[in-house]
Amino acid sequence: MTQHSAAPSLVVVGSIGIDTIETPVAKRESILGGSASYACAAASFFTNVGMVGVVGTDFPKQDVDLYKHFKINLDGLETVPGQTFRWSGVYEANMDNRRTISTDLNVFASFQPKLPAGYRRSPFLFLANIQPTLQLHVLDQIDKPRFTVVDTMDLWINTAKEDLLAVVKRVDMLTLNESEARHLSGEQTLLKAARALLSLGPKYVLVKKGEHGSILFSERSIFLMPAYPLEEVQDPTGAGDTFAGGLMGVLASAGTVDEPTLRKAMVYGSVVASFGVEAFSLDRLQTLTLAQIETRAGRFRDMMRV
Amino acid sequence: MTQHSAAPSLVVVGSIGIDTIETPVAKRESILGGSASYACAAASFFTNVGMVGVVGTDFPKQDVDLYKHFKINLDGLETVPGQTFRWSGVYEANMDNRRTISTDLNVFASFQPKLPAGYRRSPFLFLANIQPTLQLHVLDQIDKPRFTVVDTMDLWINTAKEDLLAVVKRVDMLTLNESEARHLSGEQTLLKAARALLSLGPKYVLVKKGEHGSILFSERSIFLMPAYPLEEVQDPTGAGDTFAGGLMGVLASAGTVDEPTLRKAMVYGSVVASFGVEAFSLDRLQTLTLAQIETRAGRFRDMMRV
Repeated sequence: MTQHSAAPSLVVVGSIGIDTIETPVAKRESILGGSASYACAAASFFTNVGMVGVVGTDFPKQDVDLYKHFKINLDGLETVPGQTFRWSGVYEANMDNRRTISTDLNVFASFQPKLPAGYRRSPFLFLANIQPTLQLHVLDQIDKPRFTVVDTMDLWINTAKEDLLAVVKRVDMLTLNESEARHLSGEQTLLKAARALLSLGPKYVLVKKGEHGSILFSERSIFLMPAYPLEEVQDPTGAGDTFAGGLMGVLASAGTVDEPTLRKAMVYGSVVASFGVEAFSLDRLQTLTLAQIETRAGRFRDMMRV
Repeated sequence: MTQHSAAPSLVVVGSIGIDTIETPVAKRESILGGSASYACAAASFFTNVGMVGVVGTDFPKQDVDLYKHFKINLDGLETVPGQTFRWSGVYEANMDNRRTISTDLNVFASFQPKLPAGYRRSPFLFLANIQPTLQLHVLDQIDKPRFTVVDTMDLWINTAKEDLLAVVKRVDMLTLNESEARHLSGEQTLLKAARALLSLGPKYVLVKKGEHGSILFSERSIFLMPAYPLEEVQDPTGAGDTFAGGLMGVLASAGTVDEPTLRKAMVYGSVVASFGVEAFSLDRLQTLTLAQIETRAGRFRDMMRV
């Protein structure tokens, strides 16, 4: 029973996968991936985070140990008979586009996220990119959280738009990339797209632009955030989830959500993501320290100061 | 003789053309264009600017009157027998790419920029994108200016690289777009590209990223500037020259060039460019006021504040 343990400040629901990835820099086989892995690891620098996800019986013990290294609460990690979700992809020369080679859903195909009793009063919730019906299922299990962020993708806009809209209506922040924002809203300019998306319910829309940074839209304000410039990117996989995880970690640590805290959280999320892409999988995050994050955050702020 | 008139604070050397442009929003025929037109109009809000360029005898009087409306010093505007430079292009749906339909150099083919005596002691110089040998020819005619910025394009990297490198060595700032920065440096990441370009001589490298803003690199610092988000873009033609013109206008007005002034100048250049693309040609700049620029600059700073 986890009833008596304190609720994690942040709950992350998402995928856990074994990835095989080729970038212009290198190729790595069967490495830990998945949105929940990246987001939880990033959040762990700032707050106590609980993971909700599913793996198969083949899931390596060393990866569970890595989660423990990050002090991730694993009460919500389910192990079921079968193989873990596997994904394989190749990035093009400029890393802007990637091509999926294979997707084997395996145990992820029948994933029904179940929140442990101890997670139900968690104040912060990040619904990483999974099927909208599953996201709704999570929202039904949690007591009114203080702040919920949802991520999505083109696939659900095309195949499950009604469910997705039902999710978007119930969350505080929608995060998605530029083309998805245009696609879901039907508007060409980001400003019009963001206004249309805000009218669907969320108080904030966070548009991710990859190496060009991100933009936070609310009813009354806009925050334009560039990306931290990097010498070399090894693997951009999981950058968006690392960004969102770091952001949510800072919010959960602050306990309140206002415009200055959100902007600060975006800076830290972006900094953690900038470290993450310097290596494959969670390799760089594994050795990262809060002091290194603070140093880079300071440099980053200097680069944004007018 | 112009010997006795005060030197303009800023001299702009570039093209003057008659454009026919189709964007997803509208099509306009035979409208005033050219890098010198955009840059001088933008600079005119902040400083006195002298234009060096060439037009044919067909150049409309109304366009000369428009230059006068902006109080541009026209001592360096040469009128020669023949037709004015003409360019025609079409923008794709997202305005990221444009296709040239036709280019008629006309009198621009034999352009030999001649600085009026009154311009030779001007402290600020913007060499817009013209053939590098002509840019060198201008540098030979001007007394050591306090700050010179040069713009270039892929064509010269491919066809006149040695001359271009000779120009770059003699200027304070090189401005170019992302793909040109990669092309000229041979480096993939912008950070490495910028370092390589700084080693060629200039103190600053300003990389333009269109709707994603720009980045200013120097030996010791980086400034990441986003772009002002717009409801609708009518015509992006000349945005880079408007940006550079506004930037140089602010620098010339300040009289000094240091990091805070440069960042401020980039904000104002970007704001003027954001107005410029709201209409074709100089249509929006024609009615723009300094008060409108200040209001938007204030909003823009709010959007960048962390």
